[in-house]
Amino acid sequence: MSSHGVMANKDPIKIGELTLGDYLRDANIHSTLIGKSEASPNHKALARLGIGDDTKIGRLVAQDGFEFYEDFAGLYPDPVLPSHLGYNDYLRAKGFAGDNPWELYANSAIDRSGRHVSGWQMRHADKPAIIPEEHSETAFVTNRALEFLDTVSHDQSWCIHLSYIKPHWPYLAPAPYHAVYSEDQVVPAVRHECERQNPHPVYGAFMQQEYSQNFSREEVRRRVIPTYMGLIKQIDDHLGRVFEFLESKQLMHNTMVVFTADHGDYLGDHWLGEKDLFHEPSVRIPLILYDPSSGADATRGTTNDEPVEAIDIVPTLVDYVGGTQNHERMEGRSLLPLIRGTGSVSDWREYVVSEIDYSERGPRTLLNLHPYQCRAYMIRTADWKYVLYEGFRPQLFDLKNDPEEYRDLGADPAFESERRDLHELLFNWIRQRRMRTEIPTDLLFEMGPERDAELGILIGQW
Amino acid sequence: MSSHGVMANKDPIKIGELTLGDYLRDANIHSTLIGKSEASPNHKALARLGIGDDTKIGRLVAQDGFEFYEDFAGLYPDPVLPSHLGYNDYLRAKGFAGDNPWELYANSAIDRSGRHVSGWQMRHADKPAIIPEEHSETAFVTNRALEFLDTVSHDQSWCIHLSYIKPHWPYLAPAPYHAVYSEDQVVPAVRHECERQNPHPVYGAFMQQEYSQNFSREEVRRRVIPTYMGLIKQIDDHLGRVFEFLESKQLMHNTMVVFTADHGDYLGDHWLGEKDLFHEPSVRIPLILYDPSSGADATRGTTNDEPVEAIDIVPTLVDYVGGTQNHERMEGRSLLPLIRGTGSVSDWREYVVSEIDYSERGPRTLLNLHPYQCRAYMIRTADWKYVLYEGFRPQLFDLKNDPEEYRDLGADPAFESERRDLHELLFNWIRQRRMRTEIPTDLLFEMGPERDAELGILIGQW
Repeated sequence: MSSHGVMANKDPIKIGELTLGDYLRDANIHSTLIGKSEASPNHKALARLGIGDDTKIGRLVAQDGFEFYEDFAGLYPDPVLPSHLGYNDYLRAKGFAGDNPWELYANSAIDRSGRHVSGWQMRHADKPAIIPEEHSETAFVTNRALEFLDTVSHDQSWCIHLSYIKPHWPYLAPAPYHAVYSEDQVVPAVRHECERQNPHPVYGAFMQQEYSQNFSREEVRRRVIPTYMGLIKQIDDHLGRVFEFLESKQLMHNTMVVFTADHGDYLGDHWLGEKDLFHEPSVRIPLILYDPSSGADATRGTTNDEPVEAIDIVPTLVDYVGGTQNHERMEGRSLLPLIRGTGSVSDWREYVVSEIDYSERGPRTLLNLHPYQCRAYMIRTADWKYVLYEGFRPQLFDLKNDPEEYRDLGADPAFESERRDLHELLFNWIRQRRMRTEIPTDLLFEMGPERDAELGILIGQW
Repeated sequence: MSSHGVMANKDPIKIGELTLGDYLRDANIHSTLIGKSEASPNHKALARLGIGDDTKIGRLVAQDGFEFYEDFAGLYPDPVLPSHLGYNDYLRAKGFAGDNPWELYANSAIDRSGRHVSGWQMRHADKPAIIPEEHSETAFVTNRALEFLDTVSHDQSWCIHLSYIKPHWPYLAPAPYHAVYSEDQVVPAVRHECERQNPHPVYGAFMQQEYSQNFSREEVRRRVIPTYMGLIKQIDDHLGRVFEFLESKQLMHNTMVVFTADHGDYLGDHWLGEKDLFHEPSVRIPLILYDPSSGADATRGTTNDEPVEAIDIVPTLVDYVGGTQNHERMEGRSLLPLIRGTGSVSDWREYVVSEIDYSERGPRTLLNLHPYQCRAYMIRTADWKYVLYEGFRPQLFDLKNDPEEYRDLGADPAFESERRDLHELLFNWIRQRRMRTEIPTDLLFEMGPERDAELGILIGQW
């Protein structure tokens, strides 16, 4: 985040930043988005450079280096409804009329008294969406992916970013997924009464948000979580369709699949809703890699506990296609050595880091902060998690003895040396980020006084 | 440096970065370079964005936002000689023939035995350059500035970056400036024998460079420094021409002048040559501001000891022309309140910071470092200077009791708490740099749950 500068939805990416789409394009592979993206055009930068928004390059830049086959964010109440939204066109063609069938049918339900009710109200999460499953968001995005995959030729490499919005607000699932799971299957929340006693100020402010207050009630969890689980099951089923399709096209033997998410969801854990802070339910996201190469057979079906980060995905995919690892920019590390058992991974990684900017969230006003104060950084080693908040004391969790992260040791005098070490590690991390991005790393090795002298620049000779 | 990523000569600037030229252009003011620039075209970024190097925008980007009236770096031995170099064309027109009259005449001399000798050899620094003063680099660049200024109309705002290369390698001055100062006027070097006893490893490696070894000899200082002083006197005289010209054009009453340099020069201080490290002779550069406004009369002719940084110059000039202070990008602070005595400056600044990347310097190979290890940061408060080196112990100087910076307290157990405080201050600084550059700061105040709710995004309602 600190490197690319995109800290929230709708932040345009810096125009000189490269994305997965750019790196793969350099390896002659087109990257296609099907589904949700938060890419936001950097109109100012484009205008300054004289690049029209409607040119091929202008579109690519505005789309974070991806070609958009179906851009479907799935978060369109009436005031932000785009004039052309593929999914709404699709729904209208299927007979779901109105300005915004996404909201009216895919994310609304009918209650017992026959009233049309909104999925934005969590109390309705147990009802099926009005839309039949085959026309739901997850099905639509999958259909579009299969349509796209049907067009790719066997002699052509490709990459799709198949990006599902659900499970997500509004928490509503189409039948039968609204009822695949029951309240009895909801596991207890990971939370402890002690967390509410004198919490860290930022944590406390997040606890006061409406979503947190509501998810702190068992009634809400029991209403929402079965549907949330159903929406995951629906993804599972539709990914099954994708894999079957790839099988039928003889593409599974040479297609890498990466399954992951951009964040977890508290759903009441730690007395929170949403996704902002750094407890495991929020930051520990799924990552499943399918590498068809025989080199990966030895680790197939296994799990790996090495700490990895989302930023490892780009170098992994670039590595898979034999592209150039751009060391002056990329901060992640290819995971192929881990899954193929090749190369030395003995020095894998000591820690992982996560960052937030919560200036667009409720706690900013609640705590009366300037937006630039709304930053926090998590560093997590095997045994410890340390969170640095600008302007507030840190948090510290002993993951070995308190894996549930109930006891915040951030102000406990007994743990000053642990905090100091992790604080220092974080400082080290922030200095290691790539800043000198425009000079190839290899070139730096060639520079120096010898090279200067070859060029006739004879500094310091008597 | 960490923000814009330009860490050495010839590093292309990131294509989305804005410079003084860009900010002033937004205020409808053209910025013109006359003299030395290290702007280096970011060919890769331009190509990726489909911007031709020869287009107007391509040139502006390649020229760091400036229009080049005369690009004259003054560092062109034969192997790096550009095919068209205005100064060489000028010299040839004046009868100084050859492929590279810059090297042959402006930076060469004739010794007693009539031999043509190179200014790159410091032993020749006492000889006058072959070129007559009126055709020397400093005179030529000044002439070009006056030619440009003659074309500006009174109803038009403008900015020139008048950038002299000299004093600089090769240390050679045209007559009479080679002899304005004598060996007797060379002040003693700021250095102490104790500095050579077990020095910091990076400092020690810089001491071993040829330029440092040579400048550690009095013979070299006495040969070079009078000429160096003469080259400064020459600048002084030619700036006098510029100011007289501005007076004659009735432009001095509404032209702001900023006189500064990009680095100092050790010239033997601390047993070093060149400019790389953080002692005062290297980092403490001149800064003279002339603000013609009557608001600045109260401070006219005075000096101000507040700590300022080179990054303050852009916001100062933008402030002067009434342009927009771009808070999401600019890290410096306008100096106008200091010189006009307006606004509160009670919270001016607690520290200043300087950075180096020495991966292109001799010590990289001497210390067997990876280029990314060759980073160091200085933080200086009123009383202390602390230098953090990647991979090495820090340096610490007590400026109150040791203003000459002879005693490095970086490993002294008695000063652990001072080091820790300054280390922490540096960590704070690095986190305060602008990272979220693409969203106007003001806009962040408008965002939040209330705005989301207005848009119909009803997160967390029961």
